Amino acid sequence: MTDLDGLLSGLPSWSTDPADLARAGVDRSGAVPDGLPLVVVHATGTDDVVRTVSHAAAHGIPVVPRGAGSGVSGGALAGSGTIVLDLSRLNRIVEIRPDDGIAVVEPGVITADLDRAAAEHGLRYAPDPASAAFSTIGGNIATNAGGLRCVKYGVTRDSVLALDVVTGTGHLLRTGRTTLKGVTGYDLTSLVVGSEGTLGVVVGATVKLLPVPLATATATAYFPDTRTAVEAVTRLRRRGLRPSTIEFLDHATLTAIDDAQGGDLGTRGRAFLLVRTDGYGAEDEMAAVVEVLKATATVVETSGDAAAAEALLATRRQALPSIERLGRVLIEDVVVPTTRLADAVAGIERIVRDTGVRIFTFAHAGDGNLHPIVLVEDDGPPVGGAVDALFALALDLGGTLTGEHGIGVLKRDWLAAELGGTSLDLQRRIKSVFDPAGVLNPGKAITDR
Amino acid sequence: MTDLDGLLSGLPSWSTDPADLARAGVDRSGAVPDGLPLVVVHATGTDDVVRTVSHAAAHGIPVVPRGAGSGVSGGALAGSGTIVLDLSRLNRIVEIRPDDGIAVVEPGVITADLDRAAAEHGLRYAPDPASAAFSTIGGNIATNAGGLRCVKYGVTRDSVLALDVVTGTGHLLRTGRTTLKGVTGYDLTSLVVGSEGTLGVVVGATVKLLPVPLATATATAYFPDTRTAVEAVTRLRRRGLRPSTIEFLDHATLTAIDDAQGGDLGTRGRAFLLVRTDGYGAEDEMAAVVEVLKATATVVETSGDAAAAEALLATRRQALPSIERLGRVLIEDVVVPTTRLADAVAGIERIVRDTGVRIFTFAHAGDGNLHPIVLVEDDGPPVGGAVDALFALALDLGGTLTGEHGIGVLKRDWLAAELGGTSLDLQRRIKSVFDPAGVLNPGKAITDR
Ligand SMILES: Cc1cc2nc3c(=O)[nH]c(=O)nc-3n(C[C@H](O)[C@H](O)[C@H](O)COP(=O)(O)OP(=O)(O)OC[C@H]3O[C@@H](n4cnc5c(N)ncnc54)[C@H](O)[C@@H]3O)c2cc1C
Ligand SMILES: Cc1cc2nc3c(=O)[nH]c(=O)nc-3n(C[C@H](O)[C@H](O)[C@H](O)COP(=O)(O)OP(=O)(O)OC[C@H]3O[C@@H](n4cnc5c(N)ncnc54)[C@H](O)[C@@H]3O)c2cc1C
Repeated sequence: MTDLDGLLSGLPSWSTDPADLARAGVDRSGAVPDGLPLVVVHATGTDDVVRTVSHAAAHGIPVVPRGAGSGVSGGALAGSGTIVLDLSRLNRIVEIRPDDGIAVVEPGVITADLDRAAAEHGLRYAPDPASAAFSTIGGNIATNAGGLRCVKYGVTRDSVLALDVVTGTGHLLRTGRTTLKGVTGYDLTSLVVGSEGTLGVVVGATVKLLPVPLATATATAYFPDTRTAVEAVTRLRRRGLRPSTIEFLDHATLTAIDDAQGGDLGTRGRAFLLVRTDGYGAEDEMAAVVEVLKATATVVETSGDAAAAEALLATRRQALPSIERLGRVLIEDVVVPTTRLADAVAGIERIVRDTGVRIFTFAHAGDGNLHPIVLVEDDGPPVGGAVDALFALALDLGGTLTGEHGIGVLKRDWLAAELGGTSLDLQRRIKSVFDPAGVLNPGKAITDR
Repeated sequence: MTDLDGLLSGLPSWSTDPADLARAGVDRSGAVPDGLPLVVVHATGTDDVVRTVSHAAAHGIPVVPRGAGSGVSGGALAGSGTIVLDLSRLNRIVEIRPDDGIAVVEPGVITADLDRAAAEHGLRYAPDPASAAFSTIGGNIATNAGGLRCVKYGVTRDSVLALDVVTGTGHLLRTGRTTLKGVTGYDLTSLVVGSEGTLGVVVGATVKLLPVPLATATATAYFPDTRTAVEAVTRLRRRGLRPSTIEFLDHATLTAIDDAQGGDLGTRGRAFLLVRTDGYGAEDEMAAVVEVLKATATVVETSGDAAAAEALLATRRQALPSIERLGRVLIEDVVVPTTRLADAVAGIERIVRDTGVRIFTFAHAGDGNLHPIVLVEDDGPPVGGAVDALFALALDLGGTLTGEHGIGVLKRDWLAAELGGTSLDLQRRIKSVFDPAGVLNPGKAITDR
């Protein structure tokens, strides 16, 4: 019917093995597709991508681009009747030009591998999603991934200079440029970044690399309550300080870590901040940070040396694994203006009380990005109402549904509430410009109707 | 015919006085329009913009949005049969929320006025075009303006969070969000930034404000030749240094400043760098910078204190006025990979030799953005060939036609050479989504055919 054989006979690598298809159809969101995809195509070059998308467009078959499948909003979910286009084998670091501060990569490069290669030149790739060890650059670009040091160094979009993209018509589009600045034409690079595979398949990227900071300093602090912790973040800003990382953990999370590790973090305070400074004045800046923190914290721990800093960082790192021990989780991702962070945490506590659903909250506090982790307990209350209440809370506080994970399929019912009709309509028409046949990851990010 | 009276009777402020029309039809590019516009409308609110654009769309009349008219590529050029939509009276700073690090402004706010208002809260608006004292935020957004500290703090696009935009259909579109992060929907904010008034009229903006750096340090250095100066920039990068400003002046420019001021800069070396560091470790970082500069410079001057730093900065500031004394100038704006800067300057020297046209080059060296200033002498050779050679040179070196001034009308013949057909075609179709009647600044930025 769809002449899939005609496509597959021209491609070097694909599978229709049901076990492969089952793996290729899901991501880390927990969302369940409506069946198995038709095939998973492993792209081994741009040609395979052009061929697959062109065939799909001609026959109206949905194509789901896929990196590592580490997404948590269902962006890579692929159900029956779809082609999964797996980019993970396109994983060459094509070129690093240290003196220009750029790298040219294929989309399947693992984020941490690029960072490691850059480090050989004293450079780094600034975006640092917690999934860096297994997510791909292509997936990071498609979701505009963030991480712990965004507050100072920006999100993925801020590090992408140029893209090679196969559009929904099978055309190879070059966006941007390999210079550090440039304003010729519209910014198609930024448009494709964060588009969750709905405007084009990223087959190559030119990204910025920055010098590894000469020094970093780290502190952790415990506060009597959330509001006091959040106020400390505001006071850091008022003092003109620019930490590279400001992470918040709530008391539920501290307790979960204690339960997992046998520690006593939860006794030190009811809210936690991790703050890092970096660059030439890292130690001096940290001294100023500590002064601010000490004004209201119950406990402040600092560390200049790398090993001790790692120990402090460990607390933050253990947050998610400690919660995941308790059961299946939904990793939420709302953002509010930084001055509304305490209201957001209070609102989440209210949702917990009202619904009985257990939620653990940590946050990239410096940019107001909360990750409420919703526990899905077999014998617990249904979580849908709590999640909806969370989205309503974020929008009420002047915030947004997603800071770095994307809309995927999980948040699409809320899209119109945030964007409004004029914007959504215009975005759908932009989608049609890139993908007139509507075959690129349909139903994700921007809903069809 | 176009029922202009019907429009004007509903608007509070406009002029058809020929002197006003003549002023409203030109910018600082030197480009000459084909006649006088029909009318200049002074918008006093969003309603006036909606009404003007809706009327224009209904009757197919081109609308040219205008800020301060300080553009240098003819973006605000308005010829016969056009309506100039002047936004300069929409100049309210609506709100500064220091603890959220954001400001909400109308488009006609003068860039420096916003920066001054932010300074009252210890904050600043990072983009610092040299025209900050007279350009508008709306114009900065429409051109994605850059400045001296972009190399560390980014261009205008990096500071814009949300926009209110009247599209070509007269709809009011809200893009982005007022939180520091967010990935809901496509990045329409970045798309409108740099679109030179061709996708919509910016009627409001939410921008980021950053803390004023606690300290800054400044050095100037003179080098025996361009290549040595540019290599020093590379060595700064290799040392992991992150100056906030790295400005280059060539020998022709130094001599022009000497001629204007009676100084002896041209005897100190044949190429000049101005380097600034900022933040907590500014002095320490500057010590490392100076060590790098001293290795190859003939003269290095430094200054921690503000007054002396101003004196060092003055040299850079005098560059353009000193050249403008010599006659009318074209301010060019190409970008090359930073490692090709010396090749670019050598190429420009070759163009000068070949054509006899006088060109003075300065550059935001940290991001490879050159401003070759082309002197248009009444009795001199025609400059067209030199300018074309300059664009060819930039593209040859892997660069771009414009770093921060835009395509306007002056560079549109070169657009296709840089973008290629696939991209240009797609960009035109995006333009049609925003502006189906094609009335928003037609013939600018993205050419019609
Ligand atoms: C433990 C854990 C921690 C995480 N931490 C973070 C974090 O700190 N910050 C953060 O932002 N995210 C985080 N995530 C989410 C996830 O890792 C990111 O969204 C990541 O960017 C996805 O990359 P991927 O390669 O796995 O993409 P996938 O999951 O395979 O795909 C994600 C989306 O991108 C599209 N896509 C993938 N590759 C391409 C391509 N080449 N071209 C076009 N579209 C493509 C897919 O269609 C899909 O819509 C975390 C996830 C886990 C499980
Ligand atoms: C001495 C001098 C120094 C300069 N230095 C710099 C510099 O360092 N960096 C730099 O980037 N530029 C510089 N410029 C160029 C110029 O100042 C910038 O391009 C500036 O951003 C233009 O702002 P404006 O308000 O004058 O816009 P205008 O010249 O009025 O318009 C510029 C473009 O923006 C559009 N536009 C204006 N307002 C709006 C709006 N509200 N909505 C939609 N479209 C709009 C216009 O249609 C036009 O296409 C310099 C110019 C001069 C004369």
